[in-house]
Amino acid sequence: MRLRLALTLLLLCGSAAHAQVVASDATVRSPDGKMTVTMRVSGEGRPEYSIQRNGRNVIDWSRLGFILADGPKLERNFELVQDDGKAIDETWEQPWGERRFVRNRCTEQRVTIREKTGQRRAITVVFRVFDDGVGFRYEFPEQASLAQVGIVEELTEFAVAEPATAWWIPGGEWNRYEYLYNRTPLTEVGQAHTPITLRTASGLHIAIHEAALVDYAGMWLRRVSGQRLKAVLSPSSSGPKVSRKAPFATPWRTLQIADTAAGLYMSDLILNLNEPNKLGDVSWVKPFKYVGIWWEMHLGTKTWSSGPKHGATTAETRRYIDFAAANGFRGVLVEGWNKGWDGDWFAKGDEFSFTEAYPDFDIVALAAYAKKKGVRLVGHHETAGNIAVYERQLGAALDLYAKLGIDAVKTGYVADAGGVQALGDDGRIHFEWHDGQLQSRHHLRVVEEAAKRHIAVNAHEPIKDTGLRRTYPNWVAREGARGMEYNAWGDPPNSPEHEVNLVFTRMLAGPMDYTPGVLSLTGAGGKRIQSTVARQLALYVVLYSPIQMAADLPENYAKYPKPFQFIKDVPVDWSDTRVLNGEVGDYATIARKDRHSNDWYLGAITDEQPRTLQVSLGFLDDGRKYYATIYRDGRNAGFEGDGQSLEIETRPVSRYDTLQLKLAPGGGQAIRISTKPASRGPHSSPKPAPKKPQPEFDVE
Amino acid sequence: MRLRLALTLLLLCGSAAHAQVVASDATVRSPDGKMTVTMRVSGEGRPEYSIQRNGRNVIDWSRLGFILADGPKLERNFELVQDDGKAIDETWEQPWGERRFVRNRCTEQRVTIREKTGQRRAITVVFRVFDDGVGFRYEFPEQASLAQVGIVEELTEFAVAEPATAWWIPGGEWNRYEYLYNRTPLTEVGQAHTPITLRTASGLHIAIHEAALVDYAGMWLRRVSGQRLKAVLSPSSSGPKVSRKAPFATPWRTLQIADTAAGLYMSDLILNLNEPNKLGDVSWVKPFKYVGIWWEMHLGTKTWSSGPKHGATTAETRRYIDFAAANGFRGVLVEGWNKGWDGDWFAKGDEFSFTEAYPDFDIVALAAYAKKKGVRLVGHHETAGNIAVYERQLGAALDLYAKLGIDAVKTGYVADAGGVQALGDDGRIHFEWHDGQLQSRHHLRVVEEAAKRHIAVNAHEPIKDTGLRRTYPNWVAREGARGMEYNAWGDPPNSPEHEVNLVFTRMLAGPMDYTPGVLSLTGAGGKRIQSTVARQLALYVVLYSPIQMAADLPENYAKYPKPFQFIKDVPVDWSDTRVLNGEVGDYATIARKDRHSNDWYLGAITDEQPRTLQVSLGFLDDGRKYYATIYRDGRNAGFEGDGQSLEIETRPVSRYDTLQLKLAPGGGQAIRISTKPASRGPHSSPKPAPKKPQPEFDVE
Repeated sequence: MRLRLALTLLLLCGSAAHAQVVASDATVRSPDGKMTVTMRVSGEGRPEYSIQRNGRNVIDWSRLGFILADGPKLERNFELVQDDGKAIDETWEQPWGERRFVRNRCTEQRVTIREKTGQRRAITVVFRVFDDGVGFRYEFPEQASLAQVGIVEELTEFAVAEPATAWWIPGGEWNRYEYLYNRTPLTEVGQAHTPITLRTASGLHIAIHEAALVDYAGMWLRRVSGQRLKAVLSPSSSGPKVSRKAPFATPWRTLQIADTAAGLYMSDLILNLNEPNKLGDVSWVKPFKYVGIWWEMHLGTKTWSSGPKHGATTAETRRYIDFAAANGFRGVLVEGWNKGWDGDWFAKGDEFSFTEAYPDFDIVALAAYAKKKGVRLVGHHETAGNIAVYERQLGAALDLYAKLGIDAVKTGYVADAGGVQALGDDGRIHFEWHDGQLQSRHHLRVVEEAAKRHIAVNAHEPIKDTGLRRTYPNWVAREGARGMEYNAWGDPPNSPEHEVNLVFTRMLAGPMDYTPGVLSLTGAGGKRIQSTVARQLALYVVLYSPIQMAADLPENYAKYPKPFQFIKDVPVDWSDTRVLNGEVGDYATIARKDRHSNDWYLGAITDEQPRTLQVSLGFLDDGRKYYATIYRDGRNAGFEGDGQSLEIETRPVSRYDTLQLKLAPGGGQAIRISTKPASRGPHSSPKPAPKKPQPEFDVE
Repeated sequence: MRLRLALTLLLLCGSAAHAQVVASDATVRSPDGKMTVTMRVSGEGRPEYSIQRNGRNVIDWSRLGFILADGPKLERNFELVQDDGKAIDETWEQPWGERRFVRNRCTEQRVTIREKTGQRRAITVVFRVFDDGVGFRYEFPEQASLAQVGIVEELTEFAVAEPATAWWIPGGEWNRYEYLYNRTPLTEVGQAHTPITLRTASGLHIAIHEAALVDYAGMWLRRVSGQRLKAVLSPSSSGPKVSRKAPFATPWRTLQIADTAAGLYMSDLILNLNEPNKLGDVSWVKPFKYVGIWWEMHLGTKTWSSGPKHGATTAETRRYIDFAAANGFRGVLVEGWNKGWDGDWFAKGDEFSFTEAYPDFDIVALAAYAKKKGVRLVGHHETAGNIAVYERQLGAALDLYAKLGIDAVKTGYVADAGGVQALGDDGRIHFEWHDGQLQSRHHLRVVEEAAKRHIAVNAHEPIKDTGLRRTYPNWVAREGARGMEYNAWGDPPNSPEHEVNLVFTRMLAGPMDYTPGVLSLTGAGGKRIQSTVARQLALYVVLYSPIQMAADLPENYAKYPKPFQFIKDVPVDWSDTRVLNGEVGDYATIARKDRHSNDWYLGAITDEQPRTLQVSLGFLDDGRKYYATIYRDGRNAGFEGDGQSLEIETRPVSRYDTLQLKLAPGGGQAIRISTKPASRGPHSSPKPAPKKPQPEFDVE
């Protein structure tokens, strides 16, 4: 009898049960005036917000509030007591990223609401309204009646005003984010992870996600009815979903809103809602490309575990170091180097040692050998989600790497036992969700401990990216989606559409260590990868990461020297990024400018449909001469056709040129647009030394 | 990298990663051979089941298993180690109910699976396959590696094989089950409570629910993709969703499967899956009809709280006792009699006293006065969901009622503070879900404490009904859906369709205290109830409960003596029940035979569509003479038309007659088919004493 409450209110306060009390509103406008957010408390004192763009509703009235574990819910009986606004316009520099300078221009409004009766608890909703979206979060001030906060559920809603198509992966599954994307009407979404990307009937693009997920549970979105989505926090198996002491703030709930898919990608809203760099000088954080002992394990020809097929041997690692040095790769990742892989590791992870190498892996000698060759080993910590075991060894494990000059570590959380295993206050192991509050704490703890030792972190099976790389620039990349390894053994493997889906969904969250560059296009047991060679190259530009792997085997790269040249040439750090075109799930073309030269690189990929895309080079400098080295799908190329069919052409171009990009089914195109002619030979470094211009073109 | 696991298996056990290992199956057949259930462990040792009926899949391969808080998940790496079956065919008697004798005829199969490696934990899946459905549950045997079980999530799936229409209410909302039903394609279900009722493209009817919810969290159903539903357990804010010591068994997961909606309702599967009566002689559990001080509070003319409008006064209660005695009602419910209603009760509930009456309510004198008049007070315990306060007083509260001869109590859990408030091990109050494990324990504790004192329980805002009335026959009824009070103040009020929806959804779970009989058809502020008088009468037959309220005010019944006669006549305990026709959400006609005579009562209701239904009286005894008193919608009757328009006709009928039931829009029809002529006058008792036959008919 829900409204018995209202009726009792009627008797207590004399306010009519079903009559709508007019509540005071707070309205916030974006700098360009096109986006407005309105917050009100409705008849029963329920806090609600809505979003309008160009005068039309994007988000209808949507609830705000919380169910608490230790007190009455914060859901109604509120009044608006304070409302302050300010304009923000600042430009900050990224130590590394898709672009060097980021402008943070928005209107901030702080709306404080307080209970009209009872404990008179107050919370503040902070809105930041940008030209390209909205972020808001809750602040719990210090107050006697709400000192310790246990959150059972967050009541935030997102009532999408228009019918929409949604691109999403299921949320609330016990392990990770590794799914092919669903493309359905919004009304067929069950429960989704974020970012979820929507295209409305009128063509508006909306991506709902969160920013600055710190010491809080990850947010899923559940459709409650119609087009109304609702926050569902990732659970805890040992208490409320979130336990915090006031004062604290929740993560930002974000809506990127743009006319085009490209507009979503170009938005810096999520980074802008994160705190500035907390680490000070981070010149020690180095974007880099790497190779490593990894793909062969997924092929099944080598093993992580010890034995005759053990991959991480001293000899094999030397071979990779030599290969990396010869081809200008800074990093050599070695998985399976440490003790603990021989048992039922994926169900327990309790045997991992992060300081003891297998006897056939001489880590000290290899680190020294690498350094001598101008290469660094890339560390690897697979935890199997057993963070109890990992945190116990964390300090020593990172100290070892620091001592050996290893300045980047790939962490792994294959929590196949049913979640991450954490040590509870009761001294017992609890299985917790991979994206719950506890894991959000764990990841930051690792990142902070690594930062103390000037080590960068690349987390696999991570909690989702919410832009924390701004605050912790040593958190260089993550996995957090279906990566290349699914092309080794995935059933089904990644479809051509999957990588295109990533661009306007997962990649909105931040860098992904997708590990492209499998030029052999061959998975386990000779399985054909649904791609083309040109597309493998394009992925280095399209799927941004400051660390990029050349994932294929050295012996395979030896077979394909010409496309391999692009992998050697392509940078991993950019001063500018432009999305030249794209439709969610269909195709995307992205151009990026090298952070350390005037060179541009362009990548385009398509789904299973062949396409011809017109691309203007208007982004190039005026009056500057460029050489374009074009890697395009050749005759009969395609994900089902001849994947190896590749045409390479080098030609001079200028900003007045328009290129026609011909993409095969499941194919792509990669272009190096350099102020210097095409680099040549096996020894070019990632930042190639100037070579004398070559008048004639290299056409094949 | 999900399949890294499989690959490691490959290396550990030499079994191929993506190759499907042929798993041994267990197949169970229903007594009539039409329904089969197959259980298998799939390639990776994942336990799965499927259901076929007449050789066609009803449920495709669906997962089984658990995520645990204190150990690796029970989800794969299993082998089938034991498989025992037996036939069950027994008939048992209900102390009260829709029918006196219930046949439990099914095939039971116990399938034990054990982990192939690691801890080698075993669980048993017990299937019971009926001609009209399937039930299965998990048993956790005692074993060293799984002594204390903390369940983070149950992985049970229900992959519906055919496209279907679904009737459902949202699951996982913080408070209760009080919603209008959604009717959508199954593919638009987000998260639903059970029972959820489905009608497939081929016309098959399926209701998914659970049986014997004891010391476990209630099950919601979330659609993960397509037509695949998945169990989601109601959370706990203080630990895993379920904490148990082995050995224990989960509730039964039930699928009622029938060709027609009527077939769903006629199924006794859920009762059959519950344990037999644990209370021994329950002759003290009396089905009854009651009136009470309740509707006026919902009208807003009286208050639960003290003051000038206080409803529960000695004088007012005497008036109700006199009215009950004069009209043959056994019970008089009085809400707002006890201290604690004057503060912010719905947000706290910490001021309720369950032993102290307001000064203007002389409970001792009233109980005595009632008894003298052959009437009983019906107790009322509104807890506002504060079970910490309620459990502290429970013993004394029930003792008081026992001492006063009050043998039934209506409990209430309006948990508007954001859940039920329970005392945690830490001595602090925790807010918990209304359908979590903790609340399932609380309800049974109350029922057992009440049973010790021979008191029946009618729980409002309860945990859902799962057939426990079989085991605890003093748990006579519940609310657990949108009841009559929404017609007082609901916005929107209950639609004509809502009550029809209830028949084939909520009512599949068990008795509901809907509180019908508002002959005035008038809610708060003169608001018109979307019904007709004939329909109000029909609800007594259509919406089964062993306790039925005549919810309107005595002064209103005085205005409508003729329809009121049916309310006085209609029994509340039945020896037989037949659903004569019905379509989910459209209409339903039910006939029931009085447990204490040869009389039958028939009720029919429709949605907003007018209908004429042909009904054969073939269920009547052969050679017996009956008088049918028919209460039908009159000229211009309808939920928007003249609600009071009623035709009453009495005529002799026999089993060879077929009646035409004309139902107005939003209307209904009620028929008393008695071996005695129409009862007359205000003094007929619920079990009317024989009267001399009246030859002539009373036609109006």
